[in-house]
Amino acid sequence: MGDYDPQSTRLLTFFDAVGNFESGRDTPRDYLERSIATIEARERDVKAFVVMDLDRSRAAADASTERYKAGQPLSLIDGMPMGIKDLYDTADMPTQLNSPLFEGMQPEFDAASVYALKQGGAVIVGKTTTTEFGLGASPPTRNPFDLERTPGGSSSGTAAAVGAAMLPAATGSQVGGSIIRPAAYCANFGFKPTFGALNRAGGRSIAPSGSHLGTHAGGLEDMWRSAMQIAAVVGPDAGHTPLVGPMTLPEARKPTQLIRMYTGGWEMTDDESRDVFENFLSDLRSADVEIIEPDEFPVTAACEASFKAVYPHASGILGYEMRWPVREYCNKDASKVSEVIHKRLVLGESMSAEDYQRALTFKAKLTAEVAAVSGLADGFISPASPGPAPLGIKSTGNSAYQVPTSISGIPVMTLPLLSSAGLPFGVQICGFEHGDAKLAAHAAWLTNWRLNE
Amino acid sequence: MGDYDPQSTRLLTFFDAVGNFESGRDTPRDYLERSIATIEARERDVKAFVVMDLDRSRAAADASTERYKAGQPLSLIDGMPMGIKDLYDTADMPTQLNSPLFEGMQPEFDAASVYALKQGGAVIVGKTTTTEFGLGASPPTRNPFDLERTPGGSSSGTAAAVGAAMLPAATGSQVGGSIIRPAAYCANFGFKPTFGALNRAGGRSIAPSGSHLGTHAGGLEDMWRSAMQIAAVVGPDAGHTPLVGPMTLPEARKPTQLIRMYTGGWEMTDDESRDVFENFLSDLRSADVEIIEPDEFPVTAACEASFKAVYPHASGILGYEMRWPVREYCNKDASKVSEVIHKRLVLGESMSAEDYQRALTFKAKLTAEVAAVSGLADGFISPASPGPAPLGIKSTGNSAYQVPTSISGIPVMTLPLLSSAGLPFGVQICGFEHGDAKLAAHAAWLTNWRLNE
Repeated sequence: MGDYDPQSTRLLTFFDAVGNFESGRDTPRDYLERSIATIEARERDVKAFVVMDLDRSRAAADASTERYKAGQPLSLIDGMPMGIKDLYDTADMPTQLNSPLFEGMQPEFDAASVYALKQGGAVIVGKTTTTEFGLGASPPTRNPFDLERTPGGSSSGTAAAVGAAMLPAATGSQVGGSIIRPAAYCANFGFKPTFGALNRAGGRSIAPSGSHLGTHAGGLEDMWRSAMQIAAVVGPDAGHTPLVGPMTLPEARKPTQLIRMYTGGWEMTDDESRDVFENFLSDLRSADVEIIEPDEFPVTAACEASFKAVYPHASGILGYEMRWPVREYCNKDASKVSEVIHKRLVLGESMSAEDYQRALTFKAKLTAEVAAVSGLADGFISPASPGPAPLGIKSTGNSAYQVPTSISGIPVMTLPLLSSAGLPFGVQICGFEHGDAKLAAHAAWLTNWRLNE
Repeated sequence: MGDYDPQSTRLLTFFDAVGNFESGRDTPRDYLERSIATIEARERDVKAFVVMDLDRSRAAADASTERYKAGQPLSLIDGMPMGIKDLYDTADMPTQLNSPLFEGMQPEFDAASVYALKQGGAVIVGKTTTTEFGLGASPPTRNPFDLERTPGGSSSGTAAAVGAAMLPAATGSQVGGSIIRPAAYCANFGFKPTFGALNRAGGRSIAPSGSHLGTHAGGLEDMWRSAMQIAAVVGPDAGHTPLVGPMTLPEARKPTQLIRMYTGGWEMTDDESRDVFENFLSDLRSADVEIIEPDEFPVTAACEASFKAVYPHASGILGYEMRWPVREYCNKDASKVSEVIHKRLVLGESMSAEDYQRALTFKAKLTAEVAAVSGLADGFISPASPGPAPLGIKSTGNSAYQVPTSISGIPVMTLPLLSSAGLPFGVQICGFEHGDAKLAAHAAWLTNWRLNE
């Protein structure tokens, strides 16, 4: 068992260094060198990066240093060392999707989000590992809190790099549970915004109708600022509502009511983790946050029933959408596509257009049920996973707690407030569509209340 | 003035050759050779293609010939020579978007639609010209009915190749009016399906929330079959409702009521074209099709008012969405981006996220207004352009009649039923969301009634 303690563990943060950049006591270049020192100490074991470009990072950090000296930083994240999940295009580093089919593939242009971060002066240190196409074979990455365990996935390298304090922040993406779960396993703060709120262009998801771009960080403030930087420069996905809110973390606000989610995850959750979470809810009740059990109202019961029933529908949507391009990948060289992906493809190719519509209809019903409870509470709360990171790195863990919230498109955050078996055990909190800033305010209150008081 | 006569002009059709393939009186290879002979006769003047691969086409046509001999064609379009608009990726030909920035760019994989057509045995002859990114500088393509005139755009080469009878069908795409208008200028049948109904993956639109994939053909049957082939193999855009209908053209059905659309287009329409269209409507009334004037009902009047007001909102949506990637294109080499695109970018970069949301809100209101009249009529009818193709090839004509129907996402077809000034003058008919097959049935009736009786 580990010795992780959420009260004493502090990962790398960036926002609190900015004052020292402005006063000249610190520089982005020195900040980067400290990150690099941690990378040199930990990366051999953790394996969070697919590629790094330290020369280019140092040049970018030097340019940032000059901007602070001139009193003209480009944004609130100017000089922030960041990693980019390797499902998103980068014009100066390959994009390989953890697939031998994409070995050495060099895109011509940066993804919209990468462009936005660079416009703000972020220092892109490298590409972080992912599962194959965000869904298949696992990368060699290990959990920085216990090298025998998975960091989670598919945002494996992002979560591990932040968890090992190699970087203050990095990008992630999620169809099922690929931001919220690895963030939880690696004690990150993680943010899956409202569906469509951050521009995904230049990302290579094989399940586009459910894919979200988001951010991981060692602190809430950096998590929020890096997401807002993307929103400010490249806006939402085409046709969607932008992520709205202040450029800095909204002021902490105590939630009044939260609906407890069980989903398919609770019955898989181990006893110690259940106890930890029950105690956490008791503490919340003691702090006058009302916890609504799903069976208290017919509308919350309907939601919970759909949360429990969602999995086959979500799998169907994913399987159907991946048929193309994965069939083309297999036609090119099937031996370079993992067994997991082949199996998903078989499912997808067994579906008719009508099956797909039925699955989308379930999703629409669930989304409406979630919206219908928005007058009752500020959002939902649950563990972010059925326990701490499991042993082994072949599986990246179970997404039962995330699939319902992913598919309903609501904003979700991981808060690293708990531990179980001496390992990080995250809390999942969710708001309602476009309530990202309100959710961040509740996240800030919960974090201050639990960790700082 | 030209000598085009819709009654006597017949472009190339494919569906009626299939019986001869099956009986052995004709072969896909011979069909292709006749296409190639027309290409050799007309392409030097018309310039519809960016690249062609005749060797590969001949090999594909030979393979199709063998399949018919064996009694095992892959689909209803097996052996059909087709062109692919050069905004969509092809794994065996470059994809260049009429931009020097993309000169020689060779994608790794076929776009979903190209994959689907190839799966059905279609013979991909070449890539057809487009305006720059589907929006900017015009290609050198000329109208096959009058070489001094534009073929329309952005699906310029597709419309011209079909209009010159070089191909029976080709793909097009539309944000504003890029399928319906060039189809009208070149006497094509053109089909812009319900938004999202055909999978656009592997296309490179710079305005994704409004971009539609569609088909052009010399006959309605081929137009419908090629669209359904795409739908059958790769389905809809992720998260959208599939194009539903039979694999062959639905049986002709007379529309009962059609709402007349004026839009911003009518006041630009020349006198001769107005007279031609008014006479056409009189003929329709005589055939017992009720034509509803927009001022007859408050709901139709509301629709028409929004049709007239749509243009700045549509421009705003487009401008905002193109900021990325066009800013990156300009950063790479601004001298390789046309003045038109630069101007659009300036507009886009002057917009806030709130401006974008306001424009999307207008779109949502218009979409609701259109849906609100669906009980009153079978759809809308108008000219497909303010007159026949204008002189010159620098401008590809005016999209005032199409922007309202594009932005509301409803299915639209061009029918080459009329002439004005001795040139093709198309009719635009529209159905309601997901009523693509019903619209095709009405299109079949109108075509039979006007041209075959």
